[in-house]
Amino acid sequence: MGLMSALNLPLVDEIVSRALSEDIGTGDITTLLTVPEGVEAFGQFVPTQEGILAGIPVVERVFHQVDHRIRLEPLVREGQQFSAGTVLAEVRGEARGILTAERVALNFLQRLSGIATLTARFAEAVKDLPVRICDTRKTTPGLRYLERYAVRVGGGYNHRFGLYDAVLIKDNHIAVCGGITSAVHRAKRALPHTMKVEVECTTLQQVVEAMEAGADIVLLDNMTPEQMREAVQLAKGRVLLEASGGVRLDTVRQIAETGVDAISVGAITHSAPAIDIKLELQLG
Amino acid sequence: MGLMSALNLPLVDEIVSRALSEDIGTGDITTLLTVPEGVEAFGQFVPTQEGILAGIPVVERVFHQVDHRIRLEPLVREGQQFSAGTVLAEVRGEARGILTAERVALNFLQRLSGIATLTARFAEAVKDLPVRICDTRKTTPGLRYLERYAVRVGGGYNHRFGLYDAVLIKDNHIAVCGGITSAVHRAKRALPHTMKVEVECTTLQQVVEAMEAGADIVLLDNMTPEQMREAVQLAKGRVLLEASGGVRLDTVRQIAETGVDAISVGAITHSAPAIDIKLELQLG
Amino acid sequence: MGLMSALNLPLVDEIVSRALSEDIGTGDITTLLTVPEGVEAFGQFVPTQEGILAGIPVVERVFHQVDHRIRLEPLVREGQQFSAGTVLAEVRGEARGILTAERVALNFLQRLSGIATLTARFAEAVKDLPVRICDTRKTTPGLRYLERYAVRVGGGYNHRFGLYDAVLIKDNHIAVCGGITSAVHRAKRALPHTMKVEVECTTLQQVVEAMEAGADIVLLDNMTPEQMREAVQLAKGRVLLEASGGVRLDTVRQIAETGVDAISVGAITHSAPAIDIKLELQLG
Amino acid sequence: MGLMSALNLPLVDEIVSRALSEDIGTGDITTLLTVPEGVEAFGQFVPTQEGILAGIPVVERVFHQVDHRIRLEPLVREGQQFSAGTVLAEVRGEARGILTAERVALNFLQRLSGIATLTARFAEAVKDLPVRICDTRKTTPGLRYLERYAVRVGGGYNHRFGLYDAVLIKDNHIAVCGGITSAVHRAKRALPHTMKVEVECTTLQQVVEAMEAGADIVLLDNMTPEQMREAVQLAKGRVLLEASGGVRLDTVRQIAETGVDAISVGAITHSAPAIDIKLELQLG
Amino acid sequence: MGLMSALNLPLVDEIVSRALSEDIGTGDITTLLTVPEGVEAFGQFVPTQEGILAGIPVVERVFHQVDHRIRLEPLVREGQQFSAGTVLAEVRGEARGILTAERVALNFLQRLSGIATLTARFAEAVKDLPVRICDTRKTTPGLRYLERYAVRVGGGYNHRFGLYDAVLIKDNHIAVCGGITSAVHRAKRALPHTMKVEVECTTLQQVVEAMEAGADIVLLDNMTPEQMREAVQLAKGRVLLEASGGVRLDTVRQIAETGVDAISVGAITHSAPAIDIKLELQLG
Amino acid sequence: MGLMSALNLPLVDEIVSRALSEDIGTGDITTLLTVPEGVEAFGQFVPTQEGILAGIPVVERVFHQVDHRIRLEPLVREGQQFSAGTVLAEVRGEARGILTAERVALNFLQRLSGIATLTARFAEAVKDLPVRICDTRKTTPGLRYLERYAVRVGGGYNHRFGLYDAVLIKDNHIAVCGGITSAVHRAKRALPHTMKVEVECTTLQQVVEAMEAGADIVLLDNMTPEQMREAVQLAKGRVLLEASGGVRLDTVRQIAETGVDAISVGAITHSAPAIDIKLELQLG
Repeated sequence: MGLMSALNLPLVDEIVSRALSEDIGTGDITTLLTVPEGVEAFGQFVPTQEGILAGIPVVERVFHQVDHRIRLEPLVREGQQFSAGTVLAEVRGEARGILTAERVALNFLQRLSGIATLTARFAEAVKDLPVRICDTRKTTPGLRYLERYAVRVGGGYNHRFGLYDAVLIKDNHIAVCGGITSAVHRAKRALPHTMKVEVECTTLQQVVEAMEAGADIVLLDNMTPEQMREAVQLAKGRVLLEASGGVRLDTVRQIAETGVDAISVGAITHSAPAIDIKLELQLG
Repeated sequence: MGLMSALNLPLVDEIVSRALSEDIGTGDITTLLTVPEGVEAFGQFVPTQEGILAGIPVVERVFHQVDHRIRLEPLVREGQQFSAGTVLAEVRGEARGILTAERVALNFLQRLSGIATLTARFAEAVKDLPVRICDTRKTTPGLRYLERYAVRVGGGYNHRFGLYDAVLIKDNHIAVCGGITSAVHRAKRALPHTMKVEVECTTLQQVVEAMEAGADIVLLDNMTPEQMREAVQLAKGRVLLEASGGVRLDTVRQIAETGVDAISVGAITHSAPAIDIKLELQLG
Repeated sequence: MGLMSALNLPLVDEIVSRALSEDIGTGDITTLLTVPEGVEAFGQFVPTQEGILAGIPVVERVFHQVDHRIRLEPLVREGQQFSAGTVLAEVRGEARGILTAERVALNFLQRLSGIATLTARFAEAVKDLPVRICDTRKTTPGLRYLERYAVRVGGGYNHRFGLYDAVLIKDNHIAVCGGITSAVHRAKRALPHTMKVEVECTTLQQVVEAMEAGADIVLLDNMTPEQMREAVQLAKGRVLLEASGGVRLDTVRQIAETGVDAISVGAITHSAPAIDIKLELQLG
Repeated sequence: MGLMSALNLPLVDEIVSRALSEDIGTGDITTLLTVPEGVEAFGQFVPTQEGILAGIPVVERVFHQVDHRIRLEPLVREGQQFSAGTVLAEVRGEARGILTAERVALNFLQRLSGIATLTARFAEAVKDLPVRICDTRKTTPGLRYLERYAVRVGGGYNHRFGLYDAVLIKDNHIAVCGGITSAVHRAKRALPHTMKVEVECTTLQQVVEAMEAGADIVLLDNMTPEQMREAVQLAKGRVLLEASGGVRLDTVRQIAETGVDAISVGAITHSAPAIDIKLELQLG
Repeated sequence: MGLMSALNLPLVDEIVSRALSEDIGTGDITTLLTVPEGVEAFGQFVPTQEGILAGIPVVERVFHQVDHRIRLEPLVREGQQFSAGTVLAEVRGEARGILTAERVALNFLQRLSGIATLTARFAEAVKDLPVRICDTRKTTPGLRYLERYAVRVGGGYNHRFGLYDAVLIKDNHIAVCGGITSAVHRAKRALPHTMKVEVECTTLQQVVEAMEAGADIVLLDNMTPEQMREAVQLAKGRVLLEASGGVRLDTVRQIAETGVDAISVGAITHSAPAIDIKLELQLG
Repeated sequence: MGLMSALNLPLVDEIVSRALSEDIGTGDITTLLTVPEGVEAFGQFVPTQEGILAGIPVVERVFHQVDHRIRLEPLVREGQQFSAGTVLAEVRGEARGILTAERVALNFLQRLSGIATLTARFAEAVKDLPVRICDTRKTTPGLRYLERYAVRVGGGYNHRFGLYDAVLIKDNHIAVCGGITSAVHRAKRALPHTMKVEVECTTLQQVVEAMEAGADIVLLDNMTPEQMREAVQLAKGRVLLEASGGVRLDTVRQIAETGVDAISVGAITHSAPAIDIKLELQLG
């Protein structure tokens, strides 16, 4: 895990605050009615299955927002692998706040760890090869910032954040412009010089055209490994090559071996199952 | 599908607006640079796998917010089953807006249809029995409102929305109060008379205690089918019984056959894989 | 006063912040121009009439938001009765902040104490009877959360918060459905099993129909005490009975004596006169 | 009623939206479950007591926000007196929206009409005298903009909006500055020349000092009618005189007859009882 | 610099937060990737040209919001003149936060000091005369509050804040009303007695009419110094006179010498060039 | 003017709404008091000096938000040069709305046209050379989106939007990393492959090191034209070269002639004087 695991706290706090307000509404009435002020609690986050940990800093903000005196102590580092039964973190503080925050904390932790875990399986499959596993824009609406973080924690890399921070010219853009060359030229003429241009290609001929037009990255869309290999030879390192399209755990290595620079995988964000983690509490 | 499929548009618009702003940021530069104003487009939403449709009204708001002149025509009704290749809906309007909205529209549609589809599989497994499949609070932070909608569309039922609209007394609340009876009494003494009290029980003895204390609903937590059957006999219809805890597609029927009134399943929201749906576009 | 007097601070802070911004705008120019930084002040909240205290925790947030170093010390507990001239609380800190916050603090305190005081008069009138005085949705737009709190502080109970957390079937809903039975069945078929159904009835026949249809609560709308008494006999404790409609201080006891479970009173929120409370300040 | 009855719609919409969201939350479940789409409704706003109408433009926005196709037709003008039973306005549109908006619409209408009605009684009492009845900052937190509007509709006048748009030097400010002269001079030295300075005085000696120091308005705080009369003679029209302090309907005329220019009355906003108005609906 | 240099921190924080979020977005990736946590930095704000300092309290909030542990020590007071090379303030704390906040801090400081500096040049030109240099509503959208502050810091005075806190009757208002007298009377009839009325006049005849109609302030629009002098003689101190219209540094003194009370200058906010200030950093 | 002149309306509307609310507050009282509903107005935007037009689409939203029935007809296209006295656009609609919106509309138009005009002067000076005039992050807090738009309209190009959409490694980042090579490697290791890396260099040796380390862009900071020329020869087109540092109208051509690809100029946003434009109105 590198430097990119840093989180922008104001952004996190906004997402956390929305989640808490969604769940708590006008108040956790059960807790208010049954747990008096002043009762202390101690809890342990324990998974029932193995995985890669992601989301502890988010969990920390969840508890902090509910009651800033609650203390969370991580026992496993973000990005580290854990087995079932390992204590991931401990939380201490007033029982009311911990009970109220519990579900939201788990919802974040289980989802983000789920993404990190699936990402890590993809990354592990190609770890000896010079290739990156990347995310896509196929994220949960409203959670992209955190899901991209979980991808990095799992050993993956981020693609562009959204429609605004890089150009990705797809088939429809090409069709309107009457060809890749024209589309790339149009883009580069007006684009800030600080921004890259990526072109989605489905044939090798398109790959050549994109390179000659000045693309910085070529996305190989649903190509066969053979086509990818040829594209690698054509590119000779002058552009970055990214493979995309229905990549699965059982096909990712074969794709990586073609020599592409990056493989983008929608499934790591849109279909990662949550990791089952419990908060075991002792009160009193 | 009944009346509960209604959606509160201001709430939906807030969620959609957040998702669009997350993806579009300062602008869809690729489209702005390559697609001139005035180019029209026609698109069809086509799944590559079978499933239950959910989310078309959300997709409609996505397009509407990006360009209110875009028209979406549903060809399959919410909650209906579709097979791979069926055209689910058609969209028509200016190409710029459709291209800019595409990914966010699909992210909602794929996730909500995924939830509806998994919910429907659970509901189908018990459809001849007088039992409800319910959701839980194990939802995606920020999307609970829409995910609960997808559950209903898939033939499931909603549990409480959050911590504020019903009382659910769990083990820790019971522990603090020194027993179920005391916990229920404390709750009922101050609770609005419009609200129900549910108690989580792990033993039949607790079930009896909860009923006698005046609980409206008893949650049977991780009980065996035998225990559940006994609980049903004890309850004699005087309280609602809800089964919960690691319910799977291959165990749900056995649970339903015990006679419980409701079965809550976290997996239908926290681990439903997205349904793969594409937007096939023609421009010009 | 029980546990339900707890306040959800983020909600309170949002309301307080809006009120402060409404009053202060770009700044309390009088104070900025005439009171130098560093001048200390000491103040006492003193009522000119008797009443029940409600709102001190809100006042605390008002001062905190204006200047977090200001300290408020309550001398009378929330919900306690006070006579004219009693010092309710003392405030200490920099004069600028106290002067700037004064009016907003008093506006909250006077209104909430007004509601608590009127509620307490209703509650007092029936205190030896097993009946609850409840609020309604006839609250000040934007202040419902705090006004419901003041009702509880005054010894009353809350009804549903809004349109979303319980079903209350009224005459128009019944008319559309073609009868109470149909309306209740429709509601129960789709409603979360965690939610109650209340039916507004104007005749005893309707009461019987509502009970048989499965209503949890029956609202006796503008019935005579005789009708209410009959309804109580019909209900035999199987449903909760709530009396409603122009309840006044001089009629509430007669209604309570009929044996209904709850009496809802719009006037305690929509027409409670403010209690006159002053902040007596010493500066320097 | 003059030009000042104009309302700033974006401000009104913000207040209305907050009120609707408070009441509707995730949805008006009763209506969604019992009233199908497409059912039309027609309703009449009918008061059960006499009063002065205020708030119809706010009611219009309430319905508009819930369903922009609903039409509201006023039959009585804002500011006009009505008797019990008069139809104030009619509403037509889909039943769902009208039922959902009903309570919030009434909450605004009843409160604003209550304020206008009480204001009108004060204004009526002094209508042949050259004096204004003014509001104060003793308004409901969050509703000051609308409550000031209701005061104008009732024939009253507005004082400053808040702490930011005029200077009002009170006893504590004077104490810190070491006297009225010093306080007024400090204020005028730095104040925008577009702003007025008002000084609160409790003695005639203070009135003289305030006038000589250059105050634009002098507030006569809790003075006797005799003192006020003397102040009027001292002022000779060079400053505006405002009477304040526990003004009641049975004392206002006596105060007005002293010749003061304005009388400010906290009770017209903080203690006006709501006017009882019903929405009588026909569906089908 | 007097008391009016006080800043309302919640307002400042809102503006600062918007500016930071605009610049930082999802994160300062350069700094996150190259500067490890824990590296300390020390920086000095140094101008490359002379000017008047304004904005240090805003800069303090910028750093505080990014990392509340960063400390800013001002070495020059707000409103004081500085020469090129003077150290204005020093900042100490973690390098990450200081680097991330640097540009936004400088953007505020350079602009506000630019306004204060230009204002001071105007104020200096007339400093021995009893006249105020005032700002106008020609400010940067969204920054009026801070720009007015910078004007005060530079020795200028504020005019009305916006359209809501004073009446300024211009040619078009006069035209609609059919004359100044009618316009002023209409305004005064409904206006809060706490508010002033200013009338824009282009001829001496209008000045007389405005005074007789009861205006509090007369704005002399684009008049010659001779006309202004005559207006001063006509006014005899009974109304305030404000000169306006294309005032420049080389004409302001001549205008001031006519005896007007205030001169409003749009250029001090809409065309003040930024003062060049650098943040010289040492890390490690 | 190319495709990049497109504006994201929701973003514009947010900025416009903030500006209007800042100016209008609780209402344009002058207009409300003197101009009756129903009076129509016709206005022409006329500059008193020559310049380049920018901001008409923003002005359109200003009027639209105040009164959606007001119509704005542009007579000069965005980006076109105008001389003093040319009618730039005409506005028609109800006088109230036009008068209320006037100042905010002009504030935007004058500032954005000021930026476009200054940008165009820089662009004109180098128009026959293959070089771009670029903006910087030295923009007005809160207005960066619109100021970047004005730069494009004036014939300039945008640099990165903020700290999040491209890497720009400066002296302090280099110092912490112990050299350019290490800094670039650290950045590229974790950076999304869709993002570019720019390095700020002050010596030719640094330029060589940056290129060899894999920088995409090299910023030549305060270099002499001779140094820039050498850098161009060293780069041989393998990296983009950007000149920066105190660029003025009288030095920009000399810099452009060195062969650099881009020249970034802070002054075009931070110190562009507003263009004087008036709205000439006829009412009736």
